[in-house]
Amino acid sequence: MQTILVLGAGRSSSALIDYLLDKAVSHGWKIIVGDMNLGQARQRIGGREKGEAISFTIEDEANSAEVIRQSDMVISLLPAHLHVRVAKHCLAHKKHLITASYVSPEMKALHQQAYDSGLLFLNECGLDPGIDHMSAMEIIHRIQSEGGTVTSFESFTGGLIAPDTDPGNPWRYKFTWNPRNVVMAGQGTARYLEDGQIRFIPYTQLFKRVTPVQVPNYGDFEGYANRDSLQYRELYGLSEVKTLLRGTLRNHGFCAAWHILAQLGVCDDSYSLNCEGLTHTGFTELYLPSGPLPAEERLAKFFGLSLQSPEMHRLRWSGFFSHEPIGLKQGTPAQITEHILNKKWALNPDDKDMIVMWHRFRYDKNGKPGEIQSSLAVTGTDATHTAMAKTVGLPMGMAARLLLEGRITTRGVAIPVFTELYKPILQELKTYGIVFTELTRD
Amino acid sequence: MQTILVLGAGRSSSALIDYLLDKAVSHGWKIIVGDMNLGQARQRIGGREKGEAISFTIEDEANSAEVIRQSDMVISLLPAHLHVRVAKHCLAHKKHLITASYVSPEMKALHQQAYDSGLLFLNECGLDPGIDHMSAMEIIHRIQSEGGTVTSFESFTGGLIAPDTDPGNPWRYKFTWNPRNVVMAGQGTARYLEDGQIRFIPYTQLFKRVTPVQVPNYGDFEGYANRDSLQYRELYGLSEVKTLLRGTLRNHGFCAAWHILAQLGVCDDSYSLNCEGLTHTGFTELYLPSGPLPAEERLAKFFGLSLQSPEMHRLRWSGFFSHEPIGLKQGTPAQITEHILNKKWALNPDDKDMIVMWHRFRYDKNGKPGEIQSSLAVTGTDATHTAMAKTVGLPMGMAARLLLEGRITTRGVAIPVFTELYKPILQELKTYGIVFTELTRD
Repeated sequence: MQTILVLGAGRSSSALIDYLLDKAVSHGWKIIVGDMNLGQARQRIGGREKGEAISFTIEDEANSAEVIRQSDMVISLLPAHLHVRVAKHCLAHKKHLITASYVSPEMKALHQQAYDSGLLFLNECGLDPGIDHMSAMEIIHRIQSEGGTVTSFESFTGGLIAPDTDPGNPWRYKFTWNPRNVVMAGQGTARYLEDGQIRFIPYTQLFKRVTPVQVPNYGDFEGYANRDSLQYRELYGLSEVKTLLRGTLRNHGFCAAWHILAQLGVCDDSYSLNCEGLTHTGFTELYLPSGPLPAEERLAKFFGLSLQSPEMHRLRWSGFFSHEPIGLKQGTPAQITEHILNKKWALNPDDKDMIVMWHRFRYDKNGKPGEIQSSLAVTGTDATHTAMAKTVGLPMGMAARLLLEGRITTRGVAIPVFTELYKPILQELKTYGIVFTELTRD
Repeated sequence: MQTILVLGAGRSSSALIDYLLDKAVSHGWKIIVGDMNLGQARQRIGGREKGEAISFTIEDEANSAEVIRQSDMVISLLPAHLHVRVAKHCLAHKKHLITASYVSPEMKALHQQAYDSGLLFLNECGLDPGIDHMSAMEIIHRIQSEGGTVTSFESFTGGLIAPDTDPGNPWRYKFTWNPRNVVMAGQGTARYLEDGQIRFIPYTQLFKRVTPVQVPNYGDFEGYANRDSLQYRELYGLSEVKTLLRGTLRNHGFCAAWHILAQLGVCDDSYSLNCEGLTHTGFTELYLPSGPLPAEERLAKFFGLSLQSPEMHRLRWSGFFSHEPIGLKQGTPAQITEHILNKKWALNPDDKDMIVMWHRFRYDKNGKPGEIQSSLAVTGTDATHTAMAKTVGLPMGMAARLLLEGRITTRGVAIPVFTELYKPILQELKTYGIVFTELTRD
């Protein structure tokens, strides 16, 4: 019997654990789910056959080593910075590892050791990164196999809410993923390739330099650039590409309003302030010049906005000018902003999230330009069975299955850009309703 | 014979060393000037009596200990982060220390030890911080001694250029101080007090949230906030103050143009890029969306500026759209921007710099409000004998004299907010033409 160890039973684990338990009987697997919170791990297993919940923390080195030693493969859903500690145990005990996180420099440094040990440390195998890589590579390989050259690749993914969820929410957004990462998104400088030239976008301009995206049947979106698109030129094998941009998708109008929050300075996590007794509008005040007008009017004036502008409407709806107490004693601006936003952006039990992914490929074939747009929309069932958990978890579960079945030859630290991975996974994802729609222009 | 050890013979040292050598004969002092560059130290001494140049680097611990042991007092002009290493030698060998730099947390931590050893570690004793503290305290103490309460204190200082220097330079600015600090000025978040309320200004808004300043006979200036004004509420003894803002002064229009550079992202020092063969305009391009128009027009459009705006005029004058090669192989955006700016902003030998300082005090006295504005302008002689070197160096020389004469009782880590320091120093500064002008409104 083969044992799969899943580390972490948090928000994104439900679909993965369900998938593994579903396959466990026919495949003769045992699924061990480890979490700091044993009750949470037990709940994910729900008493099903072949499942076992254990208490787990990577801080307990001896126990971590032992449970990893006893498994055949590890899937880590721990916070990204902990994956390398898991990977070191995997190296010591010769176990494969799967994660949905970006390859960190520390993880990358383990490539040769993993390769020499005949192990696969598969990362970026969730939604974004994950399904985006796989669906992009399928089309890139198809264009290339038909003699075409990809000249431009743009790709945006967003975790949004379904059209019928919270219809009065002008942002068309709620927290379906780590709220802290949402508030601090984009800090630093993004780099991408456009018309053959490297371009940089500092945080100050990130939410102003957006790409408009129309997804047939799903409406108008916009994308802002992710940290570093350039590395995918090599990883995707796009040596001739002139434009290469990966980013985050939001509903139209989100970015212009978020730009105001970024400019205001309320997403800063570098210092802490006392906010006992402070109201929402009192917090906003801290970032405005003083004056006789109310905070709302001063903010609008300072940024040259009308009070009726969509940006002001979104800030008002989120409560940034309300006299409600914040309800925190102390926090960084980012923590306070997250706390305020969470009052409106926390998912209600019946809320449905929605994943939207969009790729645009431009290519030259036989001297003629062509374009393919490929898009995906997946809607969640409720606040537990989210589209996010499904699209992040299923690719990892499917990769685990393929690997245990001996159908994957890739070794070392890798991401799912190889045919042997993306082809069967994309095929199986279709049976779960995860299907891309293509629009081709010649 | 008493020995004063001056560490560092750079840009800011000329006036200090001249002052000390002038006083050395009558006071029976020996002045030792230590620098990594022995020739530079010798040049500052210029063969004068009582002076001795030595080769010095704080990295040579044994030699540093020995030369500090043999002196009676140390004046450190080394880069600010090195002062604490000097201070530790001073503690070991029981020597006083004077610097013109802000008190760092590490320096502050030495307070009790210095105090218990009967030593004065006097910091912030240059121009800004330095003369600003002294001149402000003189007026604050005067208002308080007359029964008044200071309700507002704003103070701005700038190292600018004289009106007849480089008349075509629209920024009215050149590098008269560490250029790197100028390019990276304001990164982080400034905090100050306004109308009884703490306020934060993130870097993104710093050059937009300016205070207009008129200095009689000197024209229109504007000030942007320094990092942390709040701490001076306690240091200045301003328990009742409602507005407290310290900042940097620039000529009118400087900040609006610099705001564009800050927004563009070219003052970032966090990553390096290859700029071999890159032109000025090519560098600017990296931060702009692509398009058919020239970089200049795209930048203007992106920021909503007309091509004839004062901001665009300044950027154009500085060469940000020129096809001249940068002339660096590699650099951070901040280093490249400094390099481009330096082509126009380096001081010519005959250029005259100008220091402008401006304070505004508002107070209540006998139930009635009053206001005092106090300003200072000092013009340099040439690119060596700058107003900057004079106003930074003389206060340290004078503090050293007073201390060696046994006229200072303050001990521990301190700044010159005490009467025994500021009164004689401000008096003596007048004999060097450093005289404040007051404008009082009752």
